[in-house]
Amino acid sequence: MLKVRIVGTGFHAPERVETAEDLAPRIGKDAAWIRQRTGVLRRHISDEPMHIMAARAARKALGDGPPPDLVINASLTPLQLIPDSSVFILEELGLGGTPSFSVHATCLSFLVGLQVASSLVAAGTYRRILVVSSEQGSVSRDYEQPESAALIGDGAGAVVVEPTPAGQDSAMLDFAMATFPDGASLTVLRGCGTRKHPNDPATTVQDNLFQMSGPGVYKMALRKVPPVVGGLLARHGLSPGDIDIVIPHQASGPGMKAYQKLGFTSEQIVDIIGEYGNCISASLPMTLAHADREGRLKRGDLVCMLGTGAGLSVAAALLRW
Amino acid sequence: MLKVRIVGTGFHAPERVETAEDLAPRIGKDAAWIRQRTGVLRRHISDEPMHIMAARAARKALGDGPPPDLVINASLTPLQLIPDSSVFILEELGLGGTPSFSVHATCLSFLVGLQVASSLVAAGTYRRILVVSSEQGSVSRDYEQPESAALIGDGAGAVVVEPTPAGQDSAMLDFAMATFPDGASLTVLRGCGTRKHPNDPATTVQDNLFQMSGPGVYKMALRKVPPVVGGLLARHGLSPGDIDIVIPHQASGPGMKAYQKLGFTSEQIVDIIGEYGNCISASLPMTLAHADREGRLKRGDLVCMLGTGAGLSVAAALLRW
Repeated sequence: MLKVRIVGTGFHAPERVETAEDLAPRIGKDAAWIRQRTGVLRRHISDEPMHIMAARAARKALGDGPPPDLVINASLTPLQLIPDSSVFILEELGLGGTPSFSVHATCLSFLVGLQVASSLVAAGTYRRILVVSSEQGSVSRDYEQPESAALIGDGAGAVVVEPTPAGQDSAMLDFAMATFPDGASLTVLRGCGTRKHPNDPATTVQDNLFQMSGPGVYKMALRKVPPVVGGLLARHGLSPGDIDIVIPHQASGPGMKAYQKLGFTSEQIVDIIGEYGNCISASLPMTLAHADREGRLKRGDLVCMLGTGAGLSVAAALLRW
Repeated sequence: MLKVRIVGTGFHAPERVETAEDLAPRIGKDAAWIRQRTGVLRRHISDEPMHIMAARAARKALGDGPPPDLVINASLTPLQLIPDSSVFILEELGLGGTPSFSVHATCLSFLVGLQVASSLVAAGTYRRILVVSSEQGSVSRDYEQPESAALIGDGAGAVVVEPTPAGQDSAMLDFAMATFPDGASLTVLRGCGTRKHPNDPATTVQDNLFQMSGPGVYKMALRKVPPVVGGLLARHGLSPGDIDIVIPHQASGPGMKAYQKLGFTSEQIVDIIGEYGNCISASLPMTLAHADREGRLKRGDLVCMLGTGAGLSVAAALLRW
């Protein structure tokens, strides 16, 4: 148990909305197919790069409080390879001189960033850490893959982590994660690294776009998620009904329904996939911030954050809010 | 102070050596210019991708001990954007099911990864963490930039972090970092992200290659490094002469000499730039593992690890070995 708490959340969705009707002709499907297959009715598309969106969410999370003593960028897609994206977020926030770095675990980057931040605060290394996830994934959509192209949306979310004051109960109670490389080919973007270098003539346009076997991920997740989440709850003698609110990664419409197979009810689960789509690493903090704005997070509540990421990775965190 | 210690180090340099003479014709300079200007006499060039090199260094660090309960990839350049590179390292090590993620702070990725691992162990989150850095930077050299092209070499380094047994003194005593975005344009690779997407026709071949203003970095580092390192030592009442061994990032020949301006002597500083060049994030763990192989790390010794990274970022760690 780490005696830390989230003292601020921030949400940013770009203004420009792309409906199923707008997208349909580009992917050769009709709007009803998109809505039924992916559960995404609308998605927000950013004309701003990830560091600008990140700063918008971060400012809301920081509020009127003091500046953070560490900035962690927990996003999948960098603005550019060098320098690290956290540097550009720092610049946009006017926080020059503050240490910064990134953590990367595809769609689970935020959950890993939150766990890293919690451990750094609990160990006394830092006292006020900004964790921010921001994704402009729309630019890497492959319109020849209708299902994955229809899932992705843009957005950003952020939190601020501090030590819990004496006498209060807030805590990161526990965290569980497992990575299964046998799922590595299910969700890929093969480019942007040394394997398919952008300057290599053999690298194709598709190599630089997001490719996913939705049914493959769904099937593997059904096997791999329950032991991780069930194990986490069991370690604390909890059953799904004991959780006050479930903040899941917004993977897809069918993925959102599958969280109910874990024993959670639709009332417990915060579901924003219809309005925002899958915003990759930003989905988790956006969902948390959305719940916060709606007044659904109360001090003392048991919060379960969970999800899957490319890898395949599974992670879940149990928080006393 | 975090009561953790490094229980294993691992080093991997590819077999294939490229001398100043080999490289000279490709960058339009003679071998003497390369040696004098960069301090790099030879560099090792990998025919293997980063995850294979990472696994080679990792196996040496893990030795005959039990498997790690977390794998942190602390490398700049990914194998591909999705999944995270840590997944491929995990697969190569046969560690499926173990949690894994990456941290990213360009040349300082390893030092950040070590600090993150130390805090995770100190907070009780994990008990045996593998931190591995691996770089095949040679594929992103820009031969039209002779100086930066001549600096880069390939390699990998790894450590294993565990809690310090009761009654022993080993510790991560302190860590300091600062990031200055006004240095963001000094060291860049503008591609491989959303800003200069590989599929964007406006993205040039140069955008996907490593570009550095060596003199600009050198000048800024001279101003920014002393307060960070001096402050770290001063917090513990230490002067440079009290440090038993200095493990610096191997930025360049002139950069290696500049560490003496901090008050360290050439006897204290481990210098392997001549043989391996600048291996980006892998330089720091390679230098540490090199010192370990030479028997220069003894329990109880004060070790200072330090360096700069694109950003410009500066970081330093003080360890009781």
